[in-house]
Amino acid sequence: MLDVGFAAADEPCLRADAARNRARLLEAASRLIAEHGVAGVTMEAVAAAANVGKGTVFRRFGDRTGLLMALLDHSSRTLQADFLGGPPPLGPGAPPLERLRAFGVAVLYRSAEQLDLQLAALPEPTRRFAHPSLRFLQTHVFVLLRQIVPDADCELLAQTLLAHLDPALVHHLTRQRGMPLERLERGWIDLVARVTRTEPPRPPC
Amino acid sequence: MLDVGFAAADEPCLRADAARNRARLLEAASRLIAEHGVAGVTMEAVAAAANVGKGTVFRRFGDRTGLLMALLDHSSRTLQADFLGGPPPLGPGAPPLERLRAFGVAVLYRSAEQLDLQLAALPEPTRRFAHPSLRFLQTHVFVLLRQIVPDADCELLAQTLLAHLDPALVHHLTRQRGMPLERLERGWIDLVARVTRTEPPRPPC
Repeated sequence: MLDVGFAAADEPCLRADAARNRARLLEAASRLIAEHGVAGVTMEAVAAAANVGKGTVFRRFGDRTGLLMALLDHSSRTLQADFLGGPPPLGPGAPPLERLRAFGVAVLYRSAEQLDLQLAALPEPTRRFAHPSLRFLQTHVFVLLRQIVPDADCELLAQTLLAHLDPALVHHLTRQRGMPLERLERGWIDLVARVTRTEPPRPPC
Repeated sequence: MLDVGFAAADEPCLRADAARNRARLLEAASRLIAEHGVAGVTMEAVAAAANVGKGTVFRRFGDRTGLLMALLDHSSRTLQADFLGGPPPLGPGAPPLERLRAFGVAVLYRSAEQLDLQLAALPEPTRRFAHPSLRFLQTHVFVLLRQIVPDADCELLAQTLLAHLDPALVHHLTRQRGMPLERLERGWIDLVARVTRTEPPRPPC
């Protein structure tokens, strides 16, 4: 089931209209989540929203879990592409400190958008930190940190920075304690400055 | 079930020999965990190790879950007593920065000792950060941080510091990635220095 999300990458010969179809289904599912939460995503609702037959959705994703995993994977790949090859400051070209700031802000807003989906997909505690999607984020933060504070224990500091972006923490702070996301964003910028022992950027005039 | 752990505090008239009995059972259970892991803790094994009848263990804790919760609660209360009234640097009397360092080291070593127990008792993601046992740790770190960096967003920084002590992270780093606990301890001291923008303490000669 889980490999459905990788279909686009693993099947270079996937016909162009099938790929477009798949993208349309994922966009429709994203809209449904934004409007009605994860509970609003059923195979029927996605088919209706994308204007295709229900059978197409089942053929493409197998079942609802397959669809949800494909959604997360799709969004994770988009973010990954932005880090690795998108425009600065998220992508290459900006100084590592600016890239690190932009990274956290991008992950925070993505988490906030997909909170229910990400919470539903969190692995159990003993597998949480070894999960491939988190490993990718760890590596990216580690590589940036090593350029900024090469003498520090960047593996541990990367974990600390990522903890600020943990979907369960974002859920707790925004929904259970009513903090605006802007406060978490300011907190990220401040945390990056402290951890790297640099000055925070000046606020825009 | 969950209130069994609070029995000692809620029942001031608990007869002294019953209290001693309870303490002996909890000590026996702790030893069993240290030797055989959480799986080694059965009501029968605890009764045998404490040299009492099985009925006594059931009367005192109800069932195995009650016993495990009582164990965690007992250890949490001991730690709490050390923070609030024990000798410095953990307890009052030392400067807040030294207390904060000592706090993390104490929590780390306690987590490492009780890792299986703490992992088994971790609440599900949407309740993880609101759990009473974590709330107490958050408040303690928050109060110390506010004395050290009064102008910072100490609520968010407290979350960041505590994330370094998360049992699931300690499990991942020590058991899945083979890091020695001493590295996590050095990481804590370093993190406290960065977050508070202070110099790390000199290593002992």
